[in-house]
Amino acid sequence: MKALIYHGPGEKQWESKQDPGIEQPTDAIVKIDTTTICGTDLHILKGDVPTVEAGRSLGHEAVGTVVSVGSAVQEVKEGDRVLVSCISSCGRCAYCKRGLYSQCLNGGGWILGHLIDGTQAEYTRIPYADNSLYKVPEGLSDEQVLFLSDILPTGFEIGVINGAVKPGDTVAVVGAGPVGLAAIMTSKLYGPGRVIAIDPDTSRLERAKQFGADMTIDNSSENAVEKVKEVTGGLGADVTVEAVGIPETFELCTDLVCPGGHVANVGVHGAPATLHLETLWIKSITITTGLVDTSSTPTLLELVSEGRLDPTPFATHRFGLGEIMEAYDVFSDAAKTNALKVVLSNG
Amino acid sequence: MKALIYHGPGEKQWESKQDPGIEQPTDAIVKIDTTTICGTDLHILKGDVPTVEAGRSLGHEAVGTVVSVGSAVQEVKEGDRVLVSCISSCGRCAYCKRGLYSQCLNGGGWILGHLIDGTQAEYTRIPYADNSLYKVPEGLSDEQVLFLSDILPTGFEIGVINGAVKPGDTVAVVGAGPVGLAAIMTSKLYGPGRVIAIDPDTSRLERAKQFGADMTIDNSSENAVEKVKEVTGGLGADVTVEAVGIPETFELCTDLVCPGGHVANVGVHGAPATLHLETLWIKSITITTGLVDTSSTPTLLELVSEGRLDPTPFATHRFGLGEIMEAYDVFSDAAKTNALKVVLSNG
Amino acid sequence: MKALIYHGPGEKQWESKQDPGIEQPTDAIVKIDTTTICGTDLHILKGDVPTVEAGRSLGHEAVGTVVSVGSAVQEVKEGDRVLVSCISSCGRCAYCKRGLYSQCLNGGGWILGHLIDGTQAEYTRIPYADNSLYKVPEGLSDEQVLFLSDILPTGFEIGVINGAVKPGDTVAVVGAGPVGLAAIMTSKLYGPGRVIAIDPDTSRLERAKQFGADMTIDNSSENAVEKVKEVTGGLGADVTVEAVGIPETFELCTDLVCPGGHVANVGVHGAPATLHLETLWIKSITITTGLVDTSSTPTLLELVSEGRLDPTPFATHRFGLGEIMEAYDVFSDAAKTNALKVVLSNG
Amino acid sequence: MKALIYHGPGEKQWESKQDPGIEQPTDAIVKIDTTTICGTDLHILKGDVPTVEAGRSLGHEAVGTVVSVGSAVQEVKEGDRVLVSCISSCGRCAYCKRGLYSQCLNGGGWILGHLIDGTQAEYTRIPYADNSLYKVPEGLSDEQVLFLSDILPTGFEIGVINGAVKPGDTVAVVGAGPVGLAAIMTSKLYGPGRVIAIDPDTSRLERAKQFGADMTIDNSSENAVEKVKEVTGGLGADVTVEAVGIPETFELCTDLVCPGGHVANVGVHGAPATLHLETLWIKSITITTGLVDTSSTPTLLELVSEGRLDPTPFATHRFGLGEIMEAYDVFSDAAKTNALKVVLSNG
Repeated sequence: MKALIYHGPGEKQWESKQDPGIEQPTDAIVKIDTTTICGTDLHILKGDVPTVEAGRSLGHEAVGTVVSVGSAVQEVKEGDRVLVSCISSCGRCAYCKRGLYSQCLNGGGWILGHLIDGTQAEYTRIPYADNSLYKVPEGLSDEQVLFLSDILPTGFEIGVINGAVKPGDTVAVVGAGPVGLAAIMTSKLYGPGRVIAIDPDTSRLERAKQFGADMTIDNSSENAVEKVKEVTGGLGADVTVEAVGIPETFELCTDLVCPGGHVANVGVHGAPATLHLETLWIKSITITTGLVDTSSTPTLLELVSEGRLDPTPFATHRFGLGEIMEAYDVFSDAAKTNALKVVLSNG
Repeated sequence: MKALIYHGPGEKQWESKQDPGIEQPTDAIVKIDTTTICGTDLHILKGDVPTVEAGRSLGHEAVGTVVSVGSAVQEVKEGDRVLVSCISSCGRCAYCKRGLYSQCLNGGGWILGHLIDGTQAEYTRIPYADNSLYKVPEGLSDEQVLFLSDILPTGFEIGVINGAVKPGDTVAVVGAGPVGLAAIMTSKLYGPGRVIAIDPDTSRLERAKQFGADMTIDNSSENAVEKVKEVTGGLGADVTVEAVGIPETFELCTDLVCPGGHVANVGVHGAPATLHLETLWIKSITITTGLVDTSSTPTLLELVSEGRLDPTPFATHRFGLGEIMEAYDVFSDAAKTNALKVVLSNG
Repeated sequence: MKALIYHGPGEKQWESKQDPGIEQPTDAIVKIDTTTICGTDLHILKGDVPTVEAGRSLGHEAVGTVVSVGSAVQEVKEGDRVLVSCISSCGRCAYCKRGLYSQCLNGGGWILGHLIDGTQAEYTRIPYADNSLYKVPEGLSDEQVLFLSDILPTGFEIGVINGAVKPGDTVAVVGAGPVGLAAIMTSKLYGPGRVIAIDPDTSRLERAKQFGADMTIDNSSENAVEKVKEVTGGLGADVTVEAVGIPETFELCTDLVCPGGHVANVGVHGAPATLHLETLWIKSITITTGLVDTSSTPTLLELVSEGRLDPTPFATHRFGLGEIMEAYDVFSDAAKTNALKVVLSNG
Repeated sequence: MKALIYHGPGEKQWESKQDPGIEQPTDAIVKIDTTTICGTDLHILKGDVPTVEAGRSLGHEAVGTVVSVGSAVQEVKEGDRVLVSCISSCGRCAYCKRGLYSQCLNGGGWILGHLIDGTQAEYTRIPYADNSLYKVPEGLSDEQVLFLSDILPTGFEIGVINGAVKPGDTVAVVGAGPVGLAAIMTSKLYGPGRVIAIDPDTSRLERAKQFGADMTIDNSSENAVEKVKEVTGGLGADVTVEAVGIPETFELCTDLVCPGGHVANVGVHGAPATLHLETLWIKSITITTGLVDTSSTPTLLELVSEGRLDPTPFATHRFGLGEIMEAYDVFSDAAKTNALKVVLSNG
């Protein structure tokens, strides 16, 4: 088969690789029908994720078709059309039993395109298939479910649910990239009073409105703290979502939040932030972190199925799977191409 | 002043009554601008609520203007336009501190138009004014907030919040009268997958769709349990809301709910129901009851203010306050008049 | 091997039966070291559980040793000393993912000694072994963990956790049999202010004190509602736990509970109860039902391990496994023998 | 009357001051029977709390007797023996209605001995008396309830409840001063598996054992992270409580916590800490901060009343109220005097 192989920082190639096979009774082999590229893949290519070894095929998002299953797999069978979750779950360790699949103690968590070969390939092996694949409900297209592999549950679980958004809340999302937009879109599931997008790029803010933001703040030119206080009686936002991954935006989130409020960190950080405990100790706030668990995938599938949630606007560019090198170029130059998510279709 | 006075079962009159005055430092006197009639008022008139004494002015819903306050009142002052909550709260007892205002230990709870004179009058005295009146946000009309006195928080707190509606859920509301419609409307604040209205009256079901129901079941001709199981993979509804108040509909709710689900009783019952513990003991269900607390009023006001919730479609008929006898006729003959809520305006 | 076989109502025999073998890759075969008898086994023998077919070996509680495992089993291996959970869990269905193992959609739930052969035998087959067996922590005796198969998690999950016991609460447990005592013992994990045992049998009440009850009410001679109101400022108990399984005790629980309180039904019921909605609709109460999920087993094992919980006083009588017919006699005549739980040891 | 007056950094005097009087209808005047000194008072005296003006009488903890009440006060009356809460609550703002009294929007929160005169005096004025005083249950001594003014609810609410301690948890408390000990003592209300005290002072660790710690770590000589991982299967503590107030101990808490765990900050900080988001972003942790709300005071009073909680061991030194200057010396030299809390009795 062919796969997108990482050859060390800055190096990747769409090339031949041996077909994956069943290794454990709980494995399934999935033929990839549609996949996409994640910001994390770009991080890997920069060399920021040293746990990824050269020779690894990348990618942790896909919709595909099961071609074979191990002897213990019961939820899916050959021919089933499935959503591949970016998180693998053993389903039996203390963390998986609590729904914290990202912290799986038996070799699950984020492993696809990281510690084992991924989904930017013609075929991939999925460990713990019973707990890591989801049958695609009839009538849904690949593009309707593809972003449930990672981006939608990430915004929903780590931004909205961790942030404890509730009806009437003012929610401020800092960073209007794909994950920030996913948080904006899914925050609407909890009836917030007002969703505010904050970003220094006006074209991204424009898009945030299309994804559901009621108000936008260009923090290259406007004082976000003042603007948020203005519309919240001087108190600040009930929930702030960090969706960038740098110290400045995290610290902005702790400035924006009201007493008693929540700061939900979604961003992937490479450096420590300063936590201003000298003012925050008395503010009764809650700060959460987390990698997505994809425990909300069944809920999100149901919502897409019932027409409550439409993730298709995330798809801005489309390619054949063999054109993945070009797709990487487009996706990594998002500032110029305005790419949100690129869709790669196999045949 | 004039008020609608109860003179014992079947007897009421719009007549003169002495103006109310401040009795406690925590009281406020409110001039009624707009009021309405509740199903409970009809129950009182039938003699079903023996705690209401002859001579009592009825009504527990209103928007009005503060005309005087006791020495300890600080949240509202003369001239403020306020929403009158159907529940009075002392703000200091163990129940009020938990937000269970309906169970107030210091003479609060549902007292207006019940144990003390009510809002179907030109003026009314509001005890514990600081905790029982809410300033109307600027720019909102009386009809936008009037139904937040009782019906909206009832459907929201006792139906939706007690029922623990969550994104993706199937919610079945049994009874499509005003309170059932309020539960349907506010359930949308938690992103349900599907809201089902169940009622034997097709014109009410038609209206349920306008208030947000995705599916309707006419249980005069259709088997509700079968229909709900059909769309829920044989499991039943995640949440069932009883909004009628008779044993049959309560029992239907316990039949409709899925294992692990919630039955939220909103209806006012006059007779016991049968609880089929011989099948329910193993079903892991939760049943809740309750009178509204109106603890959600600030949230609902915010949502109306932000344009997230529009309660005005509840207003189907409008009268001057002096025409209240006629308004009672229209409201009590809802089957014929299709009245949901009648609005009575004072001048 | 030998097993205790059910031959229809009133008929049982300790007799030879074919050894169980691995049927699925997720199965394990466990040699029984210690088992016990449950009130449910007596119900089966009375013919109350028609889903149990003649020829079935009974029992759903045990500590044993793994003798073989299917190809997909990874959590336990030959030679491991394990606690057998009374509930089997597939670990992958929607209910198991929520921790509601009792409602497993893939053939789990309560199946041992019910739909498949049980633990009152020399060997038993455990389906979904990875999610249904728990390694016994080193240093713990069989009697320290045996009652974690069923009775301790039942009292804890369905009584205490469903009842939402919290620090300072008054908890009233109606029924001081083994499961009621388990609720009393485990309620102490949430710092209640006062635990009240209610039972018509004074010797059981005496024992309730040993298991942690602070106050007892003999409801053959005392008015339980009055006594509970007396110590709770007239309000009633915060949490009432039904641990008998008849309509009268359930209805007593709804009488005993305070406004805003919880009624946790643990009892197994064979007949409907009357739910007095004409008084309860306004009382803001929560009623829960459920079969144990054993989702708390790891927590309870940790607590026994750390010396926080000592279940050994439940063991009142001891027998060899081959003496099980005699053990049944003793257990079923508890009123005379004062048996709580009988311990059957294999060799 | 006499009071302990702050005269600017380093300056205090026990001297005459005008008796306080009722200023608002919601005020009460309380004669102080017993008071104590808090670490915060020492901070004020160092000049660390610039919002305290010269001339202010200090103290925010007391048991006393009501001598007069404003016209709107209804919960307490002249002659009532009361616990003075360190937090004043208006009972009607959005924060007070949520139980977040520390964030009161109407001039409540921590004001006693801070923005208004305090309890280290013969008399004090208590604003919002109905929501800020608690009647002392009959039969309890001053020393049994005095520490419920501040230290017990602080450890319980901000350490234990914010930390979400649950049965079986490993709880690590960093800092074994009075507040850390209060967290250790009250953590036992949630049935933890193991409570670990961490402090560089061995005599404080010895005391921690008396207050309920199961294990102690002297982090002047031992590696706390390694020791905690050793007893938690390499994972870390479920809950870590910061009870010191410096960056190093906060950072230790984020190192000690397991994936999915809670860090509850109780310490009062004067400087920012470093938040290692480069490792924490993926760890699914929750960090909370907060000033005590004293919303748990009724629960704690009930627990003391029922003999579940005994706060008297906090009282290590006793003085007459007139000896307060000497008491300050003893309390501020705790390293030498081993003082935990000093008790000052009036007559």
